[in-house]
Formats: sequence, structure tokens, C-alpha cells
Amino acid sequence: MTDPTYELRPIGRVESPLTDRAAAPKQGDEGAPRARVVFLPAFREAASGLREGEEVLVLTWLHLSRRDVLSVHPRGDAKRPLTGVFATRSPDRPNPIGLHAVAIEAVEEDAITVRDLEAIDGTPVLDVKPVLGKRSER
Amino acid sequence: MTDPTYELRPIGRVESPLTDRAAAPKQGDEGAPRARVVFLPAFREAASGLREGEEVLVLTWLHLSRRDVLSVHPRGDAKRPLTGVFATRSPDRPNPIGLHAVAIEAVEEDAITVRDLEAIDGTPVLDVKPVLGKRSER
Repeated sequence: MTDPTYELRPIGRVESPLTDRAAAPKQGDEGAPRARVVFLPAFREAASGLREGEEVLVLTWLHLSRRDVLSVHPRGDAKRPLTGVFATRSPDRPNPIGLHAVAIEAVEEDAITVRDLEAIDGTPVLDVKPVLGKRSER
Repeated sequence: MTDPTYELRPIGRVESPLTDRAAAPKQGDEGAPRARVVFLPAFREAASGLREGEEVLVLTWLHLSRRDVLSVHPRGDAKRPLTGVFATRSPDRPNPIGLHAVAIEAVEEDAITVRDLEAIDGTPVLDVKPVLGKRSER
């Protein structure tokens, strides 16, 4: 049996001064610049409820990642043992979806400006979700 | 310019007593049964570092969702105003990726058993990530 695959259609794109994957911080709490999430025209309606001051999760497609990596040395530290990528935050993984918890600083018709988004300029955006408690949705 | 699309390849599947989307709880804190995430053989290596007791995020593809919905009445309540889906946790959205914060109860060679996973039986799994502070990765 072959499992089906699914097609992701980006709903927008990151605009950021970060242009180099190697220079981007490894974790959000190490700091990241202000960035914009610019929505494609077809998806502006879906962004209509976003408000300044809210915390949201931005889901990205880490388009420069390798998808054939199953184990890594965490945080690139060769002294740490090889670990399955599902137990790490490695950007190299079978489905390289980035999760970014950010605060909305400003809302425009076609974009939001956010703090602490560590994704390089041009990264495709897949989704934006409100942060709701600690738990998930279905 | 046509934006590129990206292909998701499921790395596993949910096994759950939940079989009906309508009956599934709307939010995780309303309770959900024990479930298993069963990894496809090709991705078992990537799960090798997961340990009992850890909290992880399970990313799913909400395969029964509608992708053409841009606005909803939050939580299906018609008294609440239509809201862009990026400001809601609606499962109906352009890229219906589910985020589930769960605790690992048991680890097997090809699966993990978790609490509080509100996804119906057979839901494709895209990724598993450790919960790391409040912030994100890149």
C-alpha cells in the first residue's frame, strides 16, 4: 500500500532581514529580529481576524531543509549523541514544518509585523493559528 | 508568478478510539482518549530518541477538513461573528495542519502511546517535535 501524499499551498511569505540560515538563531529565546508575514491576495480574508498584541503560531515550510535526514547531533554539537529528529528541533526532517510563537506588533491589510520570527527572508508561510492555552486543536 | 507547492509525506498514522470528527472534542482541555502514533517503517529511526514521560507536539494532516474555507463562526457558534480562520483553531483552513501537545505514556519500536490526542483514527501524522520552552525553532 502506498500512503497518499498531500499538497501544501503557501498562504504567504516571510519578509525578514535574516537571509542566511547559518546565521539565524538556533532557538527563539536567543533573539530574532522583527519580521513581516505577507499574505497572498487569495488568503487575506483568512487573516482578517488577527489583532495587534495577540500571540500567534506561524507555521512555515523550511524550504532550505534536507528531508532525508532522520538523525542528527542536537544543535549541531558533534559531542552530543546522534538522536532521531523527532526528538529534536532540527530543521532537517522529513516534513520540515517550522513552528514560530510570535507576538503581533502591527496589522496591515496584507501583512502582520511580528517579533521573534526566526525564519529567513522568503520562507513560505503555511498557516497562522492563535495560541490557545497549552493544548491543541483537532 | 505561481508560487511553488510542497509535498507532505506522512511519517505515520494515529490509532485512536475516536472515529467521528463531529464527536471529537473541540479543544484538548476538554479531554481526549489515549491514542497511539504508529510510525511507518521508513521513519522509525527518526523516532528513536523519544522517551516515556516527555511532552511532544504531534503534527497531523486533518485529512477530513475543507481547504476552501477562509472564515468561520468560531467553534461553530452562529452567534459569534464570522472570523478569518487564521484567528481561529478551525480544522477547516487552507493547510489543515493539526497541532497536538501530548504526553508520551509508552514507547514501542514502531509507535508511541500518548494522552490527550484529539485526532480521529487514521489521521496522517506529519511530524513529532519536542516541546521546548515557549518559543519556536527555525
